[in-house]
Amino acid sequence: MPKKISIINQDLIAAGDPGSIKRFLDFFLNKKGLFICVIGNTETGKIPGISAAGANPEITDYTPAADVEFLYYGSCKVIDGVPITPEGIPTPGLITKSALELSDMPLLVAVAGVNIFPNVPFIDLHGKAGGNIRAGSGVENPREIFDNAKILGENISKLADYLVIGESIAGGTTTALGLLTALGYEAKGKVSSSLPDNPISLKEEVVNSGLEKIKSKNKSKSKSKDESTPDLFRNDPFKAVAGLGDPMQPAVAGITIGAGKRIPVILAGGTQMAAITALINALDKKVLDSIVIGTTKWILTDEQSDIAGIVTQINPKIPILAANFDFSKLKYNGLQVYEKGIVKEGVGAGGISVASILSSNYKININKIQKRLENIYEKIKPSA
Amino acid sequence: MPKKISIINQDLIAAGDPGSIKRFLDFFLNKKGLFICVIGNTETGKIPGISAAGANPEITDYTPAADVEFLYYGSCKVIDGVPITPEGIPTPGLITKSALELSDMPLLVAVAGVNIFPNVPFIDLHGKAGGNIRAGSGVENPREIFDNAKILGENISKLADYLVIGESIAGGTTTALGLLTALGYEAKGKVSSSLPDNPISLKEEVVNSGLEKIKSKNKSKSKSKDESTPDLFRNDPFKAVAGLGDPMQPAVAGITIGAGKRIPVILAGGTQMAAITALINALDKKVLDSIVIGTTKWILTDEQSDIAGIVTQINPKIPILAANFDFSKLKYNGLQVYEKGIVKEGVGAGGISVASILSSNYKININKIQKRLENIYEKIKPSA
Repeated sequence: MPKKISIINQDLIAAGDPGSIKRFLDFFLNKKGLFICVIGNTETGKIPGISAAGANPEITDYTPAADVEFLYYGSCKVIDGVPITPEGIPTPGLITKSALELSDMPLLVAVAGVNIFPNVPFIDLHGKAGGNIRAGSGVENPREIFDNAKILGENISKLADYLVIGESIAGGTTTALGLLTALGYEAKGKVSSSLPDNPISLKEEVVNSGLEKIKSKNKSKSKSKDESTPDLFRNDPFKAVAGLGDPMQPAVAGITIGAGKRIPVILAGGTQMAAITALINALDKKVLDSIVIGTTKWILTDEQSDIAGIVTQINPKIPILAANFDFSKLKYNGLQVYEKGIVKEGVGAGGISVASILSSNYKININKIQKRLENIYEKIKPSA
Repeated sequence: MPKKISIINQDLIAAGDPGSIKRFLDFFLNKKGLFICVIGNTETGKIPGISAAGANPEITDYTPAADVEFLYYGSCKVIDGVPITPEGIPTPGLITKSALELSDMPLLVAVAGVNIFPNVPFIDLHGKAGGNIRAGSGVENPREIFDNAKILGENISKLADYLVIGESIAGGTTTALGLLTALGYEAKGKVSSSLPDNPISLKEEVVNSGLEKIKSKNKSKSKSKDESTPDLFRNDPFKAVAGLGDPMQPAVAGITIGAGKRIPVILAGGTQMAAITALINALDKKVLDSIVIGTTKWILTDEQSDIAGIVTQINPKIPILAANFDFSKLKYNGLQVYEKGIVKEGVGAGGISVASILSSNYKININKIQKRLENIYEKIKPSA
């Protein structure tokens, strides 16, 4: 698929409305940001073949907690070592940590709903871990998570010039497809994957199965005739999340809507954040003016997904800024393979890098983030 | 006891080193603060006659959660109505809410260890509710609470010009006496009370009983000869908290030590905050330079306690600033009785008022806070 991508400079690339891109590029210069990382677990993430976040499905519960422990301490408590595959491919949280260390940006962690809690001070949003959307069971209490997140967003928006919101949740692109589909967007083949070969048909099968379940549940309740329209749940977005979403989604949407009335928000992630943009569009359109998606080159230029194609359906004014990483010449193979499209994004890696670059007025750049990353990786890589 | 109190102006009074007082009075002008309210529960708070925070001992578990729900929403979820006695005497959280509304200061809530969780987004510091210090059981894991609080403090100190840290924990002056005693300070008859008649001898009996328990426990372990010295636990402050303290104490000390390296901290409370100053003195003396105690007139001029007499023992440089409330002419009897020495302080009421007054450069003053308080009280007071 053709990609309309603007090259801003050697550090940043972008897609979307040129006026909006410029407005945000200018805004973030010399501003003070706050990074908040929202974590969650779901049964969806444990469907075999769905996620690369963890060596086996059960371990996916530990990855988000381990990610935020790593951000705070440089080591993990819920697991031995750090989230890294046996082949030495590390969590994108290493990129996030590199940018956080360079920028000295403050970090808060919010728990949207998990089975494994991190050993860090975390903000509890009163959610539970998500179910399996194949069965139409996404999130038990999306409204409660949203309400807590919103009041949190209102309060922390008084503290910073802008927010960067990242996520760590395994299977998140599948629940992104679920949410987008339930909200009536055309997202098939458009959501990305942490795997080099996007398991597109598996994701679609899971979402279609869940959609049938919630449609028939809804039909038996409402007896309306209008059930076959694609935007079935666009007017009932919490039902969309409850059926086909994950707990991270109402958390990020709530923080964004709470904060976005006062300050800009960088939604730091790939197509998962595009899905949250759709949720925000259904809940409080006006806030879209405050939103920019911050991601990585690997997402924005991905041939197997189309983040811009999703965002354009929601609101073509929303810009996507991406950190223009190039890991091909890095010292370690575990990092070089990011260029093959494995992992791609996560833990807010792209957005926090974009934020660090702009707010430092380019004193921090891609080269410095990658150097710092090599130093961090050197310490945690598996011994040969 | 004679009190050396300086009258700053009609809004503020103070005690302590004049140079330090002036330094902080100047610093806070036009600065941006962040208020964080730390809550906890203990079995100590349920000892009959210890606390006015709740109509009967068991209800004390609900008061801190209700307090912070009230701060966020103006109403409570864990209880019907708001924390108010049958006689119509409200929680000091009403003062806090008045100042927060006027100043638009951001609010975060941290849970140090509770039995009843609030229905607000809260920061979990991984503590458990405290025990009964009469049995020498204060806090199970003070070190873990402290470590989480410290990294939180480090991060949020990047967001504001200063912090205001308040507390809501029933029985907190008794555990303050416990902690001060275990750390070797002379605090008998010096800690305050939410009751108009301070149950001094009950508090002393509880603390003495607990002290004997932890001394004998310690003796059987260490076999040292030096066990009768009054500063027995000054070199092992976490043991002091574990035996005779409460979970709020290591939480507030941790946030303060984490933040205090970068920005000033207003410890918003009465003699409980003096005890935390003692804990900080034992853990990281240098941070004392960043600390000011912010409280109410009712604490600073109390004839039945002596906050200045405690603080002077720790470090005479630490200033105490107090909001110079006068409720005697307010419209409602439930508020007027504050002048009789009931309640006196709590939920950071004094410190947040001092902060709001100074940071607004006196655009907010005692009169405005009291007017707002009357308006809030009007809505929640029991119908006659």
